Amino acid sequence: MSEQVLAPGSAISVVVDGDTRQVDAGTTAADLYTGDRDVVVAHVNGTLKDLATPLADGDRVTRVLISDPEGLEVLRHSTAHVMAQAVQELKQEAKLGIGPYITDGFYFDFDVDEAFTPEDLKAIEKRMQKIVNTTQSFRRREVSHEEAVAEMAQEPYKLELIGLAQGPGSGGDVETAAEGASQEVGAGELTIYDNVDRKSGDAVWRDLCRGPHLPNTKLIGNGFALMRSAAAYWRGSEKNKQLQRIYGTAWPTKDELKAYKDRLAEAERRDHRRLGNELDLFSFPDEIGSGLAVFHPRGGLIRMEMENLSREQHVKAGYSFVNTPHITKANLFEISGHLGFYKDGMYPPMHMDQEVDAEGHVTKQGADYYLKPMNCPMHNLVFRSRGRSYRELPLRIFEFGTVYRNEKSGVVHGLTRARGFTQDDAHIYCTREQMKDELSRTLQFVLDLLKAYGLEDFYLELSTRDPEKSIGDDQSWEEATSTLEEVATASGLQLVPDPEGAAFYGPKISVQATDAIGRTWQMSTIQLDFFMPERFDLEYTAADGSRQRPVMIHRALFGSIERFFGVLTEHYAGSFPAWLAPEQVRAIPVADAFDGYLREVVERLRTAGVRAELDASSDRFPKKIRTASKEKVPFVLIAGGDDAEAGAVSFRYRDGSQENGVPVEEAIARITAHVNNRVNEDPRPSAAAGDETVGEAPGVDPEVQGAVAE
Amino acid sequence: MSEQVLAPGSAISVVVDGDTRQVDAGTTAADLYTGDRDVVVAHVNGTLKDLATPLADGDRVTRVLISDPEGLEVLRHSTAHVMAQAVQELKQEAKLGIGPYITDGFYFDFDVDEAFTPEDLKAIEKRMQKIVNTTQSFRRREVSHEEAVAEMAQEPYKLELIGLAQGPGSGGDVETAAEGASQEVGAGELTIYDNVDRKSGDAVWRDLCRGPHLPNTKLIGNGFALMRSAAAYWRGSEKNKQLQRIYGTAWPTKDELKAYKDRLAEAERRDHRRLGNELDLFSFPDEIGSGLAVFHPRGGLIRMEMENLSREQHVKAGYSFVNTPHITKANLFEISGHLGFYKDGMYPPMHMDQEVDAEGHVTKQGADYYLKPMNCPMHNLVFRSRGRSYRELPLRIFEFGTVYRNEKSGVVHGLTRARGFTQDDAHIYCTREQMKDELSRTLQFVLDLLKAYGLEDFYLELSTRDPEKSIGDDQSWEEATSTLEEVATASGLQLVPDPEGAAFYGPKISVQATDAIGRTWQMSTIQLDFFMPERFDLEYTAADGSRQRPVMIHRALFGSIERFFGVLTEHYAGSFPAWLAPEQVRAIPVADAFDGYLREVVERLRTAGVRAELDASSDRFPKKIRTASKEKVPFVLIAGGDDAEAGAVSFRYRDGSQENGVPVEEAIARITAHVNNRVNEDPRPSAAAGDETVGEAPGVDPEVQGAVAE
Repeated sequence: MSEQVLAPGSAISVVVDGDTRQVDAGTTAADLYTGDRDVVVAHVNGTLKDLATPLADGDRVTRVLISDPEGLEVLRHSTAHVMAQAVQELKQEAKLGIGPYITDGFYFDFDVDEAFTPEDLKAIEKRMQKIVNTTQSFRRREVSHEEAVAEMAQEPYKLELIGLAQGPGSGGDVETAAEGASQEVGAGELTIYDNVDRKSGDAVWRDLCRGPHLPNTKLIGNGFALMRSAAAYWRGSEKNKQLQRIYGTAWPTKDELKAYKDRLAEAERRDHRRLGNELDLFSFPDEIGSGLAVFHPRGGLIRMEMENLSREQHVKAGYSFVNTPHITKANLFEISGHLGFYKDGMYPPMHMDQEVDAEGHVTKQGADYYLKPMNCPMHNLVFRSRGRSYRELPLRIFEFGTVYRNEKSGVVHGLTRARGFTQDDAHIYCTREQMKDELSRTLQFVLDLLKAYGLEDFYLELSTRDPEKSIGDDQSWEEATSTLEEVATASGLQLVPDPEGAAFYGPKISVQATDAIGRTWQMSTIQLDFFMPERFDLEYTAADGSRQRPVMIHRALFGSIERFFGVLTEHYAGSFPAWLAPEQVRAIPVADAFDGYLREVVERLRTAGVRAELDASSDRFPKKIRTASKEKVPFVLIAGGDDAEAGAVSFRYRDGSQENGVPVEEAIARITAHVNNRVNEDPRPSAAAGDETVGEAPGVDPEVQGAVAE
Repeated sequence: MSEQVLAPGSAISVVVDGDTRQVDAGTTAADLYTGDRDVVVAHVNGTLKDLATPLADGDRVTRVLISDPEGLEVLRHSTAHVMAQAVQELKQEAKLGIGPYITDGFYFDFDVDEAFTPEDLKAIEKRMQKIVNTTQSFRRREVSHEEAVAEMAQEPYKLELIGLAQGPGSGGDVETAAEGASQEVGAGELTIYDNVDRKSGDAVWRDLCRGPHLPNTKLIGNGFALMRSAAAYWRGSEKNKQLQRIYGTAWPTKDELKAYKDRLAEAERRDHRRLGNELDLFSFPDEIGSGLAVFHPRGGLIRMEMENLSREQHVKAGYSFVNTPHITKANLFEISGHLGFYKDGMYPPMHMDQEVDAEGHVTKQGADYYLKPMNCPMHNLVFRSRGRSYRELPLRIFEFGTVYRNEKSGVVHGLTRARGFTQDDAHIYCTREQMKDELSRTLQFVLDLLKAYGLEDFYLELSTRDPEKSIGDDQSWEEATSTLEEVATASGLQLVPDPEGAAFYGPKISVQATDAIGRTWQMSTIQLDFFMPERFDLEYTAADGSRQRPVMIHRALFGSIERFFGVLTEHYAGSFPAWLAPEQVRAIPVADAFDGYLREVVERLRTAGVRAELDASSDRFPKKIRTASKEKVPFVLIAGGDDAEAGAVSFRYRDGSQENGVPVEEAIARITAHVNNRVNEDPRPSAAAGDETVGEAPGVDPEVQGAVAE
């Protein structure tokens, strides 16, 4: 609104992608990029704008391509508008909810009488393609509150959003609306986007929207698809009406859409909930309740190996191990602030210990007990259980602490978003001087731990203060944030900002890791906290005898064991490395006659600490091979007559290749080395093995070869 | 009452301690043992009776000495009567509650206006001695209901007990009274015991009581003492009035009383709650709540070592590791029967997950979630998470499962009776044919585990059915009980019955271990259960293809880690063996000049996996030695000039002895062997060490010698 208005025809100076250029007044960003169809929006002085925005003297303009992250968001948001237009053309009675872009796509909510059917989605998709092909343009209009109300008179949900945006105390209220609402109404300024017919110039559809959008629908092309529909409460609250949400995806090209769908299929194949069931790793029994996992023996074994490694590494890194209860009286969470800032995330209280006498008088007040959602308050009690000296710092307090959080059942998702989970949680108490070193050290420790599981590709996210939901003073937040930033930058990893993503007590670095199919997962978190020590009145005696406040670092490396387990299951697609695999070796005799021979090999492996099993079932040999492959056992040892005679075994690898005649002694040595060194790569034929030993299994029929390659 | 009444003077035949004797009709048990003051009561046909009981023809009489377990109980019960008489003589307004014998002593409850003071106790003790010295005799009288009511008219609590004993449905009600009530009133028969003055023959005091008692007060002697007083609810219920309880102890001789008091002092010195605080092992923070322990770093380390050993042994013994949540919806405990039979022992429910729409209608029913008091129901869900084959049995499912039980705050006692604790819990599913072998194997496994901690002296207890609080049919209970008995007997250990002590789902063997000062502790439990598999409809496919019900064995070896930790702390008196000790080696330089030399030794020990610390504080050498002794560090290494020159160190042992000039290489080898072999005995000078190397520390001043010997 502060643009300098010049007479038409006069020249203005603008900086275009770094180069200063003189252009006519009235020039739009679109004019700068005529001919470059891939430029779909632009940053003007740092703000994302429609290309149709007229430029002012001195503006700095930076192009955004459709394939850039922000370009993709705009593509998806515009596709959402087209979808809503299509829906309202097909179902006039549909009322609009919100329709934001999301990761990889978009959604739009509608108030309709009946849920959308798959046939509906097909029809809508078809109608969308038609709208796209007619090249409607997106037109932005600023409107007054009254105009907005008048234009949206038929859209009750939009009216509600207009009211929220303008009403007193609106800031806080809009905050509570679903994430997408902020894409609809900004602070103070209302805008409407029209979909304008190319021929008539008429607005054929409109929506209350902050934008920006693509110049026109044609740019959407044919790289979009509707994925599914689901019920969703208006503004995310169970107290409100249930709307119908349609999810879609949109990409610059049809090929990219196909690649995305392939990734989805691959993700589906790797879904830890499916694999958890197929491989008998864990379950979520109905009797226990939503989001509460039970680890079966095979999953429990993997988990134990994960815990063993974690324990070893924490011992080496100088952590102290503590144990604290899963419940506590309310008072502790009052001190910590959790009951003030985190109550919604907690399970309801258990009221107990009240005593009543014969006359019904309360002789002892009861107390509310809560399940803990975090371990930090209890670790603070350990810290202050006695006087502390600077000599003890940094004091690194570690616990496998199981916490419970009242996640809405809608967001609960297998192991990666559970209601009960065990954090490999630690709190480090140190002096301000030690803080930076300790953070660097902790970050390195995290990365080493993740690398031990074969994760190699990381970036960092820096979550900063949410002023509405936090404790403490500005200066301390700033110091904590800049310290974290410094440490993160020094690591050399990419650092991505996450504004207002911090917990209520301090800013956070989170380590994001890329899995085998390129998805990123938030793993470890490192938080710096000046405030809990204040609330708990934590102190140590400094070298000069004065009483000082320690700084506190909160960190969980796996995030939670459950979540990390889920991520690893998907990362490995269920083919756990041998050191983690519940069954490390399956011995399969070519015929029953070799049961005894292999049983001895299995016994020797077990003595060496290897989890080995003999398949002495009545299945035929090819079936046994298929079973071992299906159960993803890393080492399959086969023995027939030649092997038994030579005191050898044959290795059959996960990739279907085979190595014959490996002397038993060597086989055991190779397997134990692979397991004990926690090698993440699948075992393969040894480099020493000549081609002549790698080939068909003794007596394997063709059926098996195919089966194993599945 | 079935005694055969014969005319006076006629002879009857009785069996006295195995020998048949002819005695006059009217002979009492006392007559048989005239002159043997140590015989204080007798079994007549298996029932404990006063010596004054007239004998009938055919009676079998067995003497009970005052030093026999039952003799001690009678002594203590009689002493309780004397105490109550003394109290009422001193405070006429005192009304009598109950006054049973208990382990090592007795108590009596009184309704008095004010709590007893230490001075009161002294005065009561003095009065008791006077009563004892006047040789009052105890006289038993059977009374009718009306007579009892008349005689006890001034004793309202006794009247209540009389009412309970006679009223309809009394059995169940009396059950709920405190343990001692059954010593007051039996089933159907009411008796009063008089304390009779020797000279006048008058009853000077009386109480409603089942008896039996000593013949007279003189036998009480001077081996008794009053220990303390405390408030206690009438009949154990908080809903009733609070009475004042006096605890006392009584022994056949003053020497035995003194020995008992010494044992108490020793137990006090070893009290794990005191040592837990002194050695910084754990605490019970007020903020968290009663019975909920927090393990500090030093305690956490001991606990981790305990868990490591347990984990190793369970892996070797073929257990499968699972993990289950700490909470579950109520339904699971309805299936298991816990909500029917164990609700009082559980924490109250958390009600959640209810959803309400805008009009206030419940759109989703909520559920009650409970903290688990036991792990078995969850392990049953693991068992039935998929079809099971006989080939998988025995299936041994293990978990470090933390459970929560709503213990009354009055019974909570440090770690040995806590509200939250972690069981090293397993459930074994097997066929009926495997059951006996599996039980024997489990019992052996238990004993081996306990021996690993240096416990050597065991006996077994067999807890059998409480018909009022159990599920299942008689025949199965009998089979389960006799199987357990058979296995227990085969172990060769002493087997003690514990009638009605079983859990609601099956009989139990518990292993009782004797600690370093001769106290016995209930440790491990092994329960055999035919009923849970029924309730959970557990099945496996047998070799013949039929569906069969498995048998279930419940077992916890430590009982709980917390409890075992507490017992071990007392057993070791805080001087944990090196493998468990949080700090295994303390290196102490004779002067600062040797800091560097010892730091290198410490580093080498750490590299070898030993928990070693250098005391580089500004304390003087003798103080450092005292500190290490106070903190009960198992290995103290000292170095001065001679040592440094020779590349050696000096060992200072817990017993104060010392071994000089041990080459560093050898010292490290000795320490690592001691730790890695989990040796429970304190380290001592090596056998190879000649006398000349064992002696005074280099430069130790006399002050230290004394201090260390403390």
